[in-house]
Amino acid sequence: MKRQDYNLPYLLKYENVAWYENGKVEILDRRIYPIKKEKVVCESYVDVAKAITDMVTQSAGPYTAVGMGMALAAFESKKLKEEDRIEFLKEASHVLSHARPTTANRMGLITEKSYEVGRDAIKSGKDPIAAIKQDTVDSLNRRYSVMERVAENLINLLEDDSVVLTQCYGETIIGMLLRLAKEKNKNIKFYCAETRPFFQGARLTASCCAEMGFDTTVVTDNMVAWLLENNRVDLFTSAADTITADGHIANKIGTYQIAILCERFNVPYYVTGFPDRDKKDRNSIIIEMRDPEQALKFLDIKITDDNVKGIYPSFDITPPNLIKGVVTDKGVYGPEKLNLYLEEATKFY
Amino acid sequence: MKRQDYNLPYLLKYENVAWYENGKVEILDRRIYPIKKEKVVCESYVDVAKAITDMVTQSAGPYTAVGMGMALAAFESKKLKEEDRIEFLKEASHVLSHARPTTANRMGLITEKSYEVGRDAIKSGKDPIAAIKQDTVDSLNRRYSVMERVAENLINLLEDDSVVLTQCYGETIIGMLLRLAKEKNKNIKFYCAETRPFFQGARLTASCCAEMGFDTTVVTDNMVAWLLENNRVDLFTSAADTITADGHIANKIGTYQIAILCERFNVPYYVTGFPDRDKKDRNSIIIEMRDPEQALKFLDIKITDDNVKGIYPSFDITPPNLIKGVVTDKGVYGPEKLNLYLEEATKFY
Repeated sequence: MKRQDYNLPYLLKYENVAWYENGKVEILDRRIYPIKKEKVVCESYVDVAKAITDMVTQSAGPYTAVGMGMALAAFESKKLKEEDRIEFLKEASHVLSHARPTTANRMGLITEKSYEVGRDAIKSGKDPIAAIKQDTVDSLNRRYSVMERVAENLINLLEDDSVVLTQCYGETIIGMLLRLAKEKNKNIKFYCAETRPFFQGARLTASCCAEMGFDTTVVTDNMVAWLLENNRVDLFTSAADTITADGHIANKIGTYQIAILCERFNVPYYVTGFPDRDKKDRNSIIIEMRDPEQALKFLDIKITDDNVKGIYPSFDITPPNLIKGVVTDKGVYGPEKLNLYLEEATKFY
Repeated sequence: MKRQDYNLPYLLKYENVAWYENGKVEILDRRIYPIKKEKVVCESYVDVAKAITDMVTQSAGPYTAVGMGMALAAFESKKLKEEDRIEFLKEASHVLSHARPTTANRMGLITEKSYEVGRDAIKSGKDPIAAIKQDTVDSLNRRYSVMERVAENLINLLEDDSVVLTQCYGETIIGMLLRLAKEKNKNIKFYCAETRPFFQGARLTASCCAEMGFDTTVVTDNMVAWLLENNRVDLFTSAADTITADGHIANKIGTYQIAILCERFNVPYYVTGFPDRDKKDRNSIIIEMRDPEQALKFLDIKITDDNVKGIYPSFDITPPNLIKGVVTDKGVYGPEKLNLYLEEATKFY
């Protein structure tokens, strides 16, 4: 399969997400990009796990990083006996997939697959390093391809000249939307909500849009009502960390209030992604409360006085009545119609 | 008159707003407080005007700074002939009052008064420097006293245990609210919206609240809907840069969307301040569009890539239907009843 990251912005090239080469995994440090363009070099799978724990990469980045980390584990173990080497990979799969608790399940699906691929290669006398790396790239290709179909369905909602508001960093969907917009000569103007506290909108999404040649403007998170009242915005879109079967979505903190404001100013909100089969309704969403100190900082600079407290819900929940449609690989569904999507068998990872 | 800044937090002590002494005006740099506690030293009134333009001080700070700047102008001109010196003060009054367009009228009231005080002192052979400085302190005392009456009317809206959400930095009103709350043993919990791009809520309001011993939590600007849905908030309050006779208010960017969210979650919004006699309706409000680069930075660190644009409306306009009441020195008025306030003769500056 042709590599699916062609003509995508820097951030979405596989090598700039996480990449195994010559006994090392390099991971782009998304915490500071584009203020600094630095990669964290990992010389062991334990380093990779630590980088994921430290959020060097986030969003879908860890799913690539754990695969490449498994290739590195295969490199690290190359002098071990066959059985010990397989055991080493098993241990690596556990450590890598548990680098972040919230997504351990999803990461585990990937590392288990890598483990199996590596084990089978070892048993049949092939190179497990190359096999795991190729499997990781194949997985990336599949994921990127599915996201291209989502982007295709999203872009069909847009006129040739459109103005789109984004929140946080939708990762692959954003890259695919941009690539398709260029291919189809759609002239999209982007407003990116900056997305405190880590500024993923300002740093990541806006960088992708501008790099691909689109008119890109960052708005601070408190300018949204002003923007919607005083400027043309045709559509608001975001990815989602969870989409429940009944049409609630959990996404980066701030999404909910933008959705409320969009309703007030008659701007439709389209979520991209896939409903989670195992999440029925909003009660099945657990909001991760992160270290409040992180919300009181800009980069590593503490903004507030010592006795001031912070609070940091990583996600908020937007109810279906604020969502115009859920844009999936199979089409656009009203949030109350996601059961139709779920009735079809799906596999993404 | 006794100095009215007793028992107020650091930020509201006169010397820490703007202060003339020995041929210099020192202005606390609110852009970086409390990360750094630094004062900008101005050796000419032009420096003072520039400091105001550069937002070294903001909110009510410029009203003190222009008065102290006029004292400095009197110092700078001390070797000029009487008529030239008066002319010099006239020019200084113009330059200082126009350091920021949106508040030129209000600043002009102060600098004109300083000019008259200085001119009269010169004509009667007195020291215009001391006269203008004293007049500025007198004006501060009057303003602080009036604000104490406003705070009294605001605090009467609050139960003994209350939760208040703030936006930006309401300056004197915040200090007075805190001093009165302590005097009256009111146990107020504060949530402060951080107020991008300059974080006045996180840095200034939160510092004052915490310094005075109140439970203080900063929320990033994109957490407001989440906060209102998941936590008790009894009242939202902000000051206003402009209050029109028909009940529109202009205040720091972000106020409007908090007001919209508060309406949705049934939290009453009370504005503090006084209607502007010369502003009839929203058409008389000019929104200052500031350098967009400022919204892409913090502490001189550029967050975004080179081709990404910014936008920076310094204020937004909240319509009267989102405002529960305007809290003035004379009582609380519905936004449609401000004519009653205006019918009484008033003088504040």
